[in-house]
Amino acid sequence: MKDRFQKQLDFLIEADKLKTVLRQTVLIDKSRRENDAEHSWHFALAAVVLHEYAAKENVDLARVMKMALIHDMVEIYAGDTFAYDEPGYADKQEREARAADRLFSILPDDQSGEFRALWEEFERMETADAQFAAACDRLQPFINNSMTQGHTWAHNHVTSDKVYKRMDAVRTAMPELWEFVENVIRDSIENGYLLP
Amino acid sequence: MKDRFQKQLDFLIEADKLKTVLRQTVLIDKSRRENDAEHSWHFALAAVVLHEYAAKENVDLARVMKMALIHDMVEIYAGDTFAYDEPGYADKQEREARAADRLFSILPDDQSGEFRALWEEFERMETADAQFAAACDRLQPFINNSMTQGHTWAHNHVTSDKVYKRMDAVRTAMPELWEFVENVIRDSIENGYLLP
Repeated sequence: MKDRFQKQLDFLIEADKLKTVLRQTVLIDKSRRENDAEHSWHFALAAVVLHEYAAKENVDLARVMKMALIHDMVEIYAGDTFAYDEPGYADKQEREARAADRLFSILPDDQSGEFRALWEEFERMETADAQFAAACDRLQPFINNSMTQGHTWAHNHVTSDKVYKRMDAVRTAMPELWEFVENVIRDSIENGYLLP
Repeated sequence: MKDRFQKQLDFLIEADKLKTVLRQTVLIDKSRRENDAEHSWHFALAAVVLHEYAAKENVDLARVMKMALIHDMVEIYAGDTFAYDEPGYADKQEREARAADRLFSILPDDQSGEFRALWEEFERMETADAQFAAACDRLQPFINNSMTQGHTWAHNHVTSDKVYKRMDAVRTAMPELWEFVENVIRDSIENGYLLP
């Protein structure tokens, strides 16, 4: 038991580093950039609040919350890849797979396997749980952008077609919220926060 | 539906402020103080990783994760009360109850009721879920303190009897981890990080 708990403790200690991985998104008060730990919390909270909009009826909220909690932890080693950074995406998968090997192997074997499988499921976006989780993961920074004059988009000269593409996860997993997404994108273009 | 989603959206926007509520705990790299959103994420993750140590068999991890996500949100209005601040604790309950009224009423009635009830259950520490959640809530800063030469304890001249009392939630809800807690407290006293 001691050896097992030590591994779990080591993992929770390593996890603390997620609080230092910065994202492009800023807080709604614009005081600073958001970090991965805060984003993961906000994403999990969004999943709880918006669960009723899941298009598929069998979405398991407990699994989605777990995905939210661990989905970005590989960035402790692989760093955050900005959603609209195409060169960065070229080797993202490989970098993150190596990071997952390193990170999840800190845990006892059974939990290492469970966390790794859950992370891979999230990344693949094939199951109902992963699709709903992906939609929440994208909705959270989208909301922050909508409240900060499209801060991340304007700062990085992002075009609306890329945002539409990225937000497509919401259209399929939470279709009732698609009108909201479209309205924000249209307003952001009109106001010059997002390139047409 | 539009009015309902607008309330949920307003809640998720208000929630962003939790990222600006600072705690006494510092990150393990000691670079800065931790905020409530990061703490909530780390607490939820600890609950997932340490679920097997729950003394009571019927602990519902999904409910515990939800508690973790919302347990400190009242601090958006009520502020963080340091665990070892006795005067601060005098009116904590009243301040936080008012904050809960204000915060959770942003949500649609059904969710407002659910979140409020879950928060109250957590605060009361009577159910198996709330007791396990409370133990995780206390273990997370305890781990950070154990990794930072008892930063919060030393900085605030905390005595070991208060830490024992606060950590008693772990003794009852996760008895197998009590030896770890005792060892950290004993070492911290020996090293002068914690007053005997």
